[in-house]
Amino acid sequence: MADTVQPRTLPGFMELMPPEQQLFEKIKGILEETYRSYGFFALDTPILEHSDILLAKAGGETEKQIYRFSKGDTDLTMRFDLTVPLAKYVAMHQNELAFPFRRYQIGKVYRGERAQKGRYREFYQADIDVIGDGTLGIINDAEIPSIICDIFRKLGIEGFTIRMNNRKVLNGIFEVYGVRDRATDVMRIIDKLDKIGREKVIEELSGIGMDEARAGELLDFLGLKLTNDEILEKLGSLSGKSATLDEGTGELSTLLKYAALLGVPSENMRIDLTIARGLDYYTGTVYETIINSHPEIGSVCSGGRYDNLAEYYTSRKLPGVGMSIGLTRLFYVLDANDFIDRSFSSPADVLIIPMTDDVEGAVRLSVDLRSRGIRTQVYLEDKKFKQKMTYADRLGVPFVAILGEDEIAQGKLSLKDMNSGEQILASPDEAAEKILSRIGELSEAKVLHID
Amino acid sequence: MADTVQPRTLPGFMELMPPEQQLFEKIKGILEETYRSYGFFALDTPILEHSDILLAKAGGETEKQIYRFSKGDTDLTMRFDLTVPLAKYVAMHQNELAFPFRRYQIGKVYRGERAQKGRYREFYQADIDVIGDGTLGIINDAEIPSIICDIFRKLGIEGFTIRMNNRKVLNGIFEVYGVRDRATDVMRIIDKLDKIGREKVIEELSGIGMDEARAGELLDFLGLKLTNDEILEKLGSLSGKSATLDEGTGELSTLLKYAALLGVPSENMRIDLTIARGLDYYTGTVYETIINSHPEIGSVCSGGRYDNLAEYYTSRKLPGVGMSIGLTRLFYVLDANDFIDRSFSSPADVLIIPMTDDVEGAVRLSVDLRSRGIRTQVYLEDKKFKQKMTYADRLGVPFVAILGEDEIAQGKLSLKDMNSGEQILASPDEAAEKILSRIGELSEAKVLHID
Repeated sequence: MADTVQPRTLPGFMELMPPEQQLFEKIKGILEETYRSYGFFALDTPILEHSDILLAKAGGETEKQIYRFSKGDTDLTMRFDLTVPLAKYVAMHQNELAFPFRRYQIGKVYRGERAQKGRYREFYQADIDVIGDGTLGIINDAEIPSIICDIFRKLGIEGFTIRMNNRKVLNGIFEVYGVRDRATDVMRIIDKLDKIGREKVIEELSGIGMDEARAGELLDFLGLKLTNDEILEKLGSLSGKSATLDEGTGELSTLLKYAALLGVPSENMRIDLTIARGLDYYTGTVYETIINSHPEIGSVCSGGRYDNLAEYYTSRKLPGVGMSIGLTRLFYVLDANDFIDRSFSSPADVLIIPMTDDVEGAVRLSVDLRSRGIRTQVYLEDKKFKQKMTYADRLGVPFVAILGEDEIAQGKLSLKDMNSGEQILASPDEAAEKILSRIGELSEAKVLHID
Repeated sequence: MADTVQPRTLPGFMELMPPEQQLFEKIKGILEETYRSYGFFALDTPILEHSDILLAKAGGETEKQIYRFSKGDTDLTMRFDLTVPLAKYVAMHQNELAFPFRRYQIGKVYRGERAQKGRYREFYQADIDVIGDGTLGIINDAEIPSIICDIFRKLGIEGFTIRMNNRKVLNGIFEVYGVRDRATDVMRIIDKLDKIGREKVIEELSGIGMDEARAGELLDFLGLKLTNDEILEKLGSLSGKSATLDEGTGELSTLLKYAALLGVPSENMRIDLTIARGLDYYTGTVYETIINSHPEIGSVCSGGRYDNLAEYYTSRKLPGVGMSIGLTRLFYVLDANDFIDRSFSSPADVLIIPMTDDVEGAVRLSVDLRSRGIRTQVYLEDKKFKQKMTYADRLGVPFVAILGEDEIAQGKLSLKDMNSGEQILASPDEAAEKILSRIGELSEAKVLHID
């Protein structure tokens, strides 16, 4: 070979080192397992689609960010989310699918954003949605917080808050405050509350024609620091003033009741009338989820209820509710903060190190251990013992099984616990028991350690 | 909404209906689980790469088939296999990786081939490779058949044959037959044996200057219908005539010995001196795998040993051995032939059907069942009983739990076995036991039914 090409990966494309990839897989596996436990179908749509399909709705911002190109006569675009492909899929198969259609999809999406730390151009979304045919019961909305709660518990986080609101409640309040006709503007401005502060928001609201005192009252009302029950009571006190508000209040109340029945602790759910989550998509329930000790991470799971999933592809009304986790960004933040337990980074539960030239015993042992459900690797290279142990260290395996002449003669092995350094002479049965017990501990262990 | 766009998926891009996607996930899960059981690291490289990286080696054929485009100043290509990205990755991180580096990757790749039945432009490959630094012990080659064997067993196929050969054996035989300098041509011609037949092959061999009688002898030698031991003996009888042949014979013999130790039954391994698997990549062991009753499917798992994984990116010698499963095509064939057990197509183990307006009991039951590891869905829509049962049928759930006033009053539920039609009144404990027993049966069941 003469010239070589400098190997490199595109900026903004996450490519992890092996131990980190193992951690990523662990977290991805927890999402998948949780989605499945609720009976969601898996879905796997193509990464490439006809451009007119993906861009049926898209506005200018999306157009700029997309990966779009031609091959032959075909105008192609790489998907930039998993919702538009879902809408296409449901519209295409509307006469074959059984509704409610419940699906999860964990897949890569593409956005050509400016590359910067923690921002990715290729990233995983992990979505669930429930799509109804014409109607979809409000209780479906309560399942989403329950799923979020299960995911956080399995990850090992107790301190999280699912912030909930309902767009009908918001619109109803705007109606009561006489700004319903400017609801979109008002929402857009209120959405900036965290960023620009109360004064600026009131200023901007007055800029679109709202009386300053009234704007202040509106903000006071929306920003109430009360319990969920108190907020529901407060909303109930406005009963009769707006049909939309009454409907939204009823939905919010049902959502909380069933989420509680589904096991979501009340301390993990908070009504927050200031959240809106995007301007022209959600029509009822909206959620976002914050890690209490790290609000700066932003919302980890977000979603809500929409009236019309596939209006760009069919006239059939397909309402739905769903949520999305930006898995790649979430992983980046968790890893950068060293929140993930490194015990999950090993690809194997045990590394067998043969000390004799003949590796027959090591190979036989590997078959035995593997048949017991132990992830087993044999070190097959002809290296010095020290190098073999360095390899074990670098893999991060919890156990090493050393098989020398003495051990083989006794039908035993030396099992070294790489965490404690303790080494024992053990029969294969005893070794398997010790390793399986560690696997059991790990399956109960918290994946994340967040103060 | 005014105009709608006709929803459609690109030709050559597999997009499955929900039950089939569940089956696909089941098979994908078996590959993943098996790869992991051998202690392979997961790897996830980007789908997009710099074009000069992916095309460092590529010849004209690849260039025509690729998805290549520009965004801004960047020349991008969608990966067309998982080997080139692996080579890039290993070259990039050669000083950080612990060797042997063992990785699996299951991911989509892109080839703009002519769309036809069973041919896909977006398809999954499921690869494993073991990469050494400078050297890599031959015993690694024996692990691949063991992994293939585990996968087939877990899928439920006993009747499969891993055909093995060694390029050094082939080159050595060519040396003995005096055609070593035309090895590539000879191999290319012999590769066509199945397609064009013996006569034509001899004709073509004579076309490149080989004596016809000698060509016939060569074909007789390569096509020997003997046991593995007999073939090894035959190769041994040529000992001393070619150093390359002797080396290859030794490797082939070691491969068989350790594959047997790893538990691969001898009836599943056959030396076949006619297989070469591509012309300029493999340098030692080569494999392909055939389902005995359906040879027309072609090779399901193929791979082999190569000397230099990353020669286009680094001068460091990185030998490896690996194999690849064309998962999308494999699934297509298995599904089209109705080989896959439909029991695995349900997204849930049980569907709870509430018969009362208040679904509180149903929701509580779902939490209970889910906490026992049962995938549980509650039917939450307000429909007639018959429509609810039709939904259960269409999901393919094995059990339905009906919860009416009578059942609730007794703290019980009516559990209907959807296969037998049998319905019993059961406590939640009894119901869970029955469902878990079915899940247990299913975990032992064969995924594939191939005569």
